[in-house]
Amino acid sequence: MASPVYVVKVGGSAGIRDDELLDELAARHANGERFLLVHGGSDETNEVARQLGHPPRFVTSVSGFESRYTDRKTLEIFSMVYCGRRNKSLVEGLQQRGVNAVGLSGADGRIFEGEMKGALKIIEGGKKKVLRGDYSGKITRVHTELLELLLEGGFFPVLTPPAIDRESSCMMNVDGDRAAAELAKAFSARALIILSTVPGLLRDLDGDHSDPTNLISSIDLSSAEDPYSAAEGRMKKKIMGAQEAIDGGVEKVILSTANRPNPIRSALEGAGTTIFRSAVAAEESRI
Amino acid sequence: MASPVYVVKVGGSAGIRDDELLDELAARHANGERFLLVHGGSDETNEVARQLGHPPRFVTSVSGFESRYTDRKTLEIFSMVYCGRRNKSLVEGLQQRGVNAVGLSGADGRIFEGEMKGALKIIEGGKKKVLRGDYSGKITRVHTELLELLLEGGFFPVLTPPAIDRESSCMMNVDGDRAAAELAKAFSARALIILSTVPGLLRDLDGDHSDPTNLISSIDLSSAEDPYSAAEGRMKKKIMGAQEAIDGGVEKVILSTANRPNPIRSALEGAGTTIFRSAVAAEESRI
Repeated sequence: MASPVYVVKVGGSAGIRDDELLDELAARHANGERFLLVHGGSDETNEVARQLGHPPRFVTSVSGFESRYTDRKTLEIFSMVYCGRRNKSLVEGLQQRGVNAVGLSGADGRIFEGEMKGALKIIEGGKKKVLRGDYSGKITRVHTELLELLLEGGFFPVLTPPAIDRESSCMMNVDGDRAAAELAKAFSARALIILSTVPGLLRDLDGDHSDPTNLISSIDLSSAEDPYSAAEGRMKKKIMGAQEAIDGGVEKVILSTANRPNPIRSALEGAGTTIFRSAVAAEESRI
Repeated sequence: MASPVYVVKVGGSAGIRDDELLDELAARHANGERFLLVHGGSDETNEVARQLGHPPRFVTSVSGFESRYTDRKTLEIFSMVYCGRRNKSLVEGLQQRGVNAVGLSGADGRIFEGEMKGALKIIEGGKKKVLRGDYSGKITRVHTELLELLLEGGFFPVLTPPAIDRESSCMMNVDGDRAAAELAKAFSARALIILSTVPGLLRDLDGDHSDPTNLISSIDLSSAEDPYSAAEGRMKKKIMGAQEAIDGGVEKVILSTANRPNPIRSALEGAGTTIFRSAVAAEESRI
């Protein structure tokens, strides 16, 4: 039987370091472990968009999440940076470490297929508004055929948004964490490891990031406590992605930092925030 | 036996139209024909480079060819536009026509592997100079494994420079026509069709492009005539690529326009300039 798949998502915030992650991925790949790497690129996209005179526009949805308004021009810039810059930079970094990497967007082979919203329902100045012409959406299906071919062939897939709309086949922006979660579900991944510049889910984002008492080391989704109670802003999306992944059969989701040596081993050994559902394990053990 | 492969290169000049080509590729793909599509993106790259405050620098090599000086920053912009914009735009266009396209650079799966020059020997102001820090080179090997997997799996590969340096695994700029020629050789392509905004090789580039007497309809590389005698500028590179491809086992190379309905059928039926070597055919028929 083929070895289990690990899905690793590396963020796109300013200050994220790739070298230590790529070193570890190369060593583990050489050792026969199987990975799917997903990446972000938001800060570089914002920077390029500003340079090109089309600055990013962030909006707050009626459900309270902040997201990027993606008109067609923004989508093109997004695609340039995600697919052309960060994706190829990671492919190059892996190739330089002897890994035969292949970089793909969600449009290639329709890997990430979904449904475009078309219009965003937002809150602006305290009022509800509808913003049209939005090229973003939600992944509803992961096509695994191409990725299975690549994994069987010994290649190392490096994946990035955008995704592709099921009906129009237009490219569309999707959240990278949610894309990684969908991928982890589709492959029943052993673990989904989401790496960013912060050590995990923090009690106080403005507090000391290196203070161990500031880190929430685990969240049991079976416990009575609201898992979102301690989460703000983008961290909410990360927990939401984690919950979806676990509900879909992924063993555990770990939020940790990319900026340390062996970030995957550290995450698997308990650094960061491990999200799991103990009741599922208990139920399985009863069968 | 698998059906023969056609390699189609579509240029990246301003004014090039993709829709008619994509329509025809989709129809032929549905019919079981096998294609490898290679594309350029030079004009969009120049435009984005200027917008980003890093305008293109063109130099003339000591052997008389004009080429782009590719410092690391230029390579990053090049990769953004070629891999992130034009490549994904073609993938999206094919997906919209029901073709399961997969866009790849030469770094992915090391498809286009080569040797970086590092320094350019140029002529500037009548003097020979050496320009260092150049990320461009020549393809020395095409890795076909990934492409074979994709073709067997029913996917449609859409390929683009940059390539990857054999030793350093750094990405490097390569000429798209030469990349297409190397690809055609590696697959012993039935034909290499190079589509641009001009109808083929013209006697007078400044003359009337629609005048049939201005078009060189064929070049027999076996004839005594110098095939380069009528060629200027970038057309020299196209003939050079054609010659390499034919020397490497490709049956014929056709230079034609993308901007017409069914550009592939037109090219195969004799529109444009067909380059071949009659002596090879004669020799084969004697065996």
